[in-house]
Amino acid sequence: MKSWVTEELHADIHSRFRVKEVLFDNKTEHQNLVIYVNEIYGRVMALDGVTQITERDEFIYHEMLAHLPIFAHGAVKKVLIVGGGDGGMLEEVLKHPTVEKVTMVELDRTVIELSKKHLPMICGNAFEDPRLDLVIKDGCLFMKECSEKYDLIIVDSTDPIGPGEVLFTDNFYTDCKSCLEEGGILVTQNGVPFLQADELKSTLSFFKPIFAEATCYLATVPTYVGGPMAFGWGTDQKGLKDIPLDQLEARYKAAAIETKYYTPEIHRAAFALPGYVQKLVA
Amino acid sequence: MKSWVTEELHADIHSRFRVKEVLFDNKTEHQNLVIYVNEIYGRVMALDGVTQITERDEFIYHEMLAHLPIFAHGAVKKVLIVGGGDGGMLEEVLKHPTVEKVTMVELDRTVIELSKKHLPMICGNAFEDPRLDLVIKDGCLFMKECSEKYDLIIVDSTDPIGPGEVLFTDNFYTDCKSCLEEGGILVTQNGVPFLQADELKSTLSFFKPIFAEATCYLATVPTYVGGPMAFGWGTDQKGLKDIPLDQLEARYKAAAIETKYYTPEIHRAAFALPGYVQKLVA
Repeated sequence: MKSWVTEELHADIHSRFRVKEVLFDNKTEHQNLVIYVNEIYGRVMALDGVTQITERDEFIYHEMLAHLPIFAHGAVKKVLIVGGGDGGMLEEVLKHPTVEKVTMVELDRTVIELSKKHLPMICGNAFEDPRLDLVIKDGCLFMKECSEKYDLIIVDSTDPIGPGEVLFTDNFYTDCKSCLEEGGILVTQNGVPFLQADELKSTLSFFKPIFAEATCYLATVPTYVGGPMAFGWGTDQKGLKDIPLDQLEARYKAAAIETKYYTPEIHRAAFALPGYVQKLVA
Repeated sequence: MKSWVTEELHADIHSRFRVKEVLFDNKTEHQNLVIYVNEIYGRVMALDGVTQITERDEFIYHEMLAHLPIFAHGAVKKVLIVGGGDGGMLEEVLKHPTVEKVTMVELDRTVIELSKKHLPMICGNAFEDPRLDLVIKDGCLFMKECSEKYDLIIVDSTDPIGPGEVLFTDNFYTDCKSCLEEGGILVTQNGVPFLQADELKSTLSFFKPIFAEATCYLATVPTYVGGPMAFGWGTDQKGLKDIPLDQLEARYKAAAIETKYYTPEIHRAAFALPGYVQKLVA
């Protein structure tokens, strides 16, 4: 590996991370996986040449996809995570003592094994938690066959290229919807709308016919090039995105979870969409 | 010039823009100035190797530094812009029919001339507006000698390296404060707190002793690497950052200005700070 890793996800704009040390660089059964150290971002994992997660800014992505829907719902007991092999989402979800069971469906066993080995600061001991039911399987196939119901489904996917593509389809979302408990929430990783507008538009066009409330919320993860990232939000609890601040504050206080990005104010602010994103959602 | 421009502002993380066409590449009296075309971002201007503004995302930066304080204040007549040679800030400010006079103090005449020539989609006809009083001078020196008073001062500076460094000092901010009308507002470009935390901490340590309300607000400009950008906010109108939504909506409607990023909801949400930024502000 060279002394710089170049991410070429977007033609005409690349980002480059200087490599201090390579920890792993090889093909898994499903994709090319690299783990290295960068002076600013700490440990970095890239799949098929695209940065997935870094030690220094993973908290933003994971806190906003885990805590936000859990605090919005208020009584989440059963959670399904699709993807999320690095274990960071799992770790955040398990911080909630009210969560009784988490099913995690990951395609690539090697991602999990290498994350446990090289990214323990991201997954902690989450994979040893007795509340975890870990399934190694294609997420799309799992959803098709699933007969369980969940209060919250988190789609922690890669970009819609390669193995992650099936997790952005109409069929997949419909299967997710039918595995939600009444009043359950589906949240999804939906790319950076400034550069990947079609990804968000497509997901929301599938959400709108099946959910009473279908929109997105935003958070800026520094390593994802091109502005704030959108998270798809689908639920039949209409108005849940506007949950009052005092209610969130009470739940946040009761949970006593330490966060570095999420606050109840940030929760509400995340649903305020800039004009150019509003246009995509409308 | 090579077929890629590499920005090396942050050691260990670089961003690269593919160059479709070079429009200008030379030294001015004060700095190195490049204007080129990128397929995604359109026309791009870089000073001393750092991207300043792009055709495609300039609206975010300019709308948030111009409209947000003007709508918060509600009766801005006289505005001072320090820097802002590309004319984008000037153009946004002049959209407000209530604004009677704008003084703009820019160090580098060549930036203005080249912006008028190559970036007309950013400055429009702003430089021909009879309300403009254009001064070619060092902003720091101008403030020291200034005896006028303004409702709003916008510091539209480069990074605190090179010619822009003096615009981040205690003396400069104190001079700005003394040129504000009662209830006036000072807003400043304050870098990306995720990577430039000291820049924000330093500015706010200077703001706090001189303003009743000293904080920052955020917006993510895709071309600025490393997460949301912070804008310093200083005013003696305590509580102005929490101005009610209905008041903002009334002012926004009355102004009838078309925006692509700014909305009254975004205005309020911009003051909601993620935990890691709150820590720097506290």
